[in-house]
Amino acid sequence: MKNNFEFDLIATDGNARAGIFYTPHGAIETPIFAPVGTQATVKSLTSRQLEEEGVSFILSNTYHLYLRPGDERIAAFGGVHGFMNWKGPILTDSGGFQVFSLNELRKIDEQGVTFRSHLDGSKHRFTPEKSIAIQENLGADIIMAFDECAPPHDYRYNVSAMNRTHRWLERCLKAKTRPDQALFGIIQGGIFADLREKSARFIVEMDTPGVAIGGLSVGETKAEMNAMLDVLAPILPPNKPHYLMGVGSPEDLVHGIRRGVDIFDCVLPTRLARHGAAMTRRGQMNLVNQQYRDDPRPIVEGCTCYTCANHSRAYIRHLFRAKEHLSGTLLSIHNIHTLMTIVRDARKAILAGKYDDFANEFLAGYPEKP
Amino acid sequence: MKNNFEFDLIATDGNARAGIFYTPHGAIETPIFAPVGTQATVKSLTSRQLEEEGVSFILSNTYHLYLRPGDERIAAFGGVHGFMNWKGPILTDSGGFQVFSLNELRKIDEQGVTFRSHLDGSKHRFTPEKSIAIQENLGADIIMAFDECAPPHDYRYNVSAMNRTHRWLERCLKAKTRPDQALFGIIQGGIFADLREKSARFIVEMDTPGVAIGGLSVGETKAEMNAMLDVLAPILPPNKPHYLMGVGSPEDLVHGIRRGVDIFDCVLPTRLARHGAAMTRRGQMNLVNQQYRDDPRPIVEGCTCYTCANHSRAYIRHLFRAKEHLSGTLLSIHNIHTLMTIVRDARKAILAGKYDDFANEFLAGYPEKP
Repeated sequence: MKNNFEFDLIATDGNARAGIFYTPHGAIETPIFAPVGTQATVKSLTSRQLEEEGVSFILSNTYHLYLRPGDERIAAFGGVHGFMNWKGPILTDSGGFQVFSLNELRKIDEQGVTFRSHLDGSKHRFTPEKSIAIQENLGADIIMAFDECAPPHDYRYNVSAMNRTHRWLERCLKAKTRPDQALFGIIQGGIFADLREKSARFIVEMDTPGVAIGGLSVGETKAEMNAMLDVLAPILPPNKPHYLMGVGSPEDLVHGIRRGVDIFDCVLPTRLARHGAAMTRRGQMNLVNQQYRDDPRPIVEGCTCYTCANHSRAYIRHLFRAKEHLSGTLLSIHNIHTLMTIVRDARKAILAGKYDDFANEFLAGYPEKP
Repeated sequence: MKNNFEFDLIATDGNARAGIFYTPHGAIETPIFAPVGTQATVKSLTSRQLEEEGVSFILSNTYHLYLRPGDERIAAFGGVHGFMNWKGPILTDSGGFQVFSLNELRKIDEQGVTFRSHLDGSKHRFTPEKSIAIQENLGADIIMAFDECAPPHDYRYNVSAMNRTHRWLERCLKAKTRPDQALFGIIQGGIFADLREKSARFIVEMDTPGVAIGGLSVGETKAEMNAMLDVLAPILPPNKPHYLMGVGSPEDLVHGIRRGVDIFDCVLPTRLARHGAAMTRRGQMNLVNQQYRDDPRPIVEGCTCYTCANHSRAYIRHLFRAKEHLSGTLLSIHNIHTLMTIVRDARKAILAGKYDDFANEFLAGYPEKP
């Protein structure tokens, strides 16, 4: 039996890694993708549907659950696990990214952030200590440091946000009390190699059981994001999981794994699904398009997800046109399945020492995007 | 092996009946409840979820599928079965009830009904022949005669609607070509015993493989509905299934079965679910109510549906408050499961010769409604 929050590095292939991260709610085989259950539900899917598509690990949001139904209420149900009845590992973010995204509704100072709820305009305040207290109520296996995420191209802002993120990490570590939760520190620094390097060295020094990369996929190009991952790869600790926050397109997973990322999360598969878009290994398909009106094929031929095993493009298009919620459910199933099979296939390729072949073949078939 | 559309009457208990109706897509054990998949989807549920809750037989709507995606398109997919990938029996209505419900958008004459689409205002015409042609494209196992449904308390209108319904049944029977579909005639007559009796005798005379009771649950009281079923019970043919159209509250099922009904359908379980109401054997619960905010119990203790086996009232309430579609999915699962267990338990009671005990006990615990 392994200790909680131990990370077994099983194999490496270049910078790509296959490992196992042990948590109180089970072992996570990495690389892994975690769907997002913002409000303690991965939108429109039951836990059984998630399990059927191979999901083992999900993310939930501190900001949303703090506001509704309230973290103390959730604590009374045994945390998010008990409240939503998810038996596998859960990660909660710190709420930082959400409150910073509120723009004119929030004010930042050295102690924390004062903000107004997007639900009812009520006034609230998050500090590093408060974020940890909420996350201890939510009870996830992995909790995140309260950080400041700056616009990626603003150097001066990134210097100050990075330094504040470091000071806040120290406060988070002091505030933390639960031994059954792993607190991950977050590397900031925008698209600036010197800042990323400095931030990574600081976070590694703090020796948190996992290391997260924040402030990417927030407006920079994919080339800029990958350049930052290249800067970080040699600095990140080999014996701890590396988590790239908020990233989750198929090609981003493949690029990220190549650069040593172990954990990904993103709302993309479920958000695209609600808008009628299917993820595939050859890019997105908009199922609402008229060209699918009479198309009897599954979204992806050979795909083993529930949706592709049972339904045609024409049927899914009909459901969208008829504004039936099942359309979002079926496409969410397909999109999540697609990302789960990509990380699983990536893991197999790493274990076989063939990750470059896998990635090159994948990316050759994938349409380029800025 | 039984022939298609044979009805085996296995047991009777008073007027209550347990039987088996054979269709090209499988045998239906009666009494049975059929959830409604208006647009070729039982709202927010996958076929697998329906099967998991014991659903064997569903209904779909001619009017909606004719308008979108079009019955010819569906025919190209092997009918509704192929289009939505439902392997069990399906029943389609005639479109009559929907077009009559359009009120100022429709005009009735002896040949048929001219109406405007609720989607785009385009002009269409249904006749008995057209309804059958559409239903042959949709390919359900059971198809319905095109009938005229009058307001239940208007005697003169009911006389003319009943007579027209009879004339239109003769035209439907002439128009029908597919041997693998059973066409059911529909008894009309509002809340008037003499009309119901006359209509029943006519429909029985036409010798359709099943007999439907239309024009109930459309504004009359429950006492008036049950009185009509009492009038019909001795007239309905014992060797054919009796279908009470559009009826589906728990107490209506119990009352209807007592009076010889074998088949029910209704949008109620899924519609209530979308509005936060759970069906139980003790009446409805509105899960949106504040009283459930911290309630860790399942909707119904001991219920074996997926929702009750996995989730608390507090969680479902949270999902509603957070406007998460999963709330409707989870409550639809529970509501449909509830109706399926009622018809299953009714069948067991009939087979045991104890239907009166079952019904009396059930109704004693159920809140009375007008």
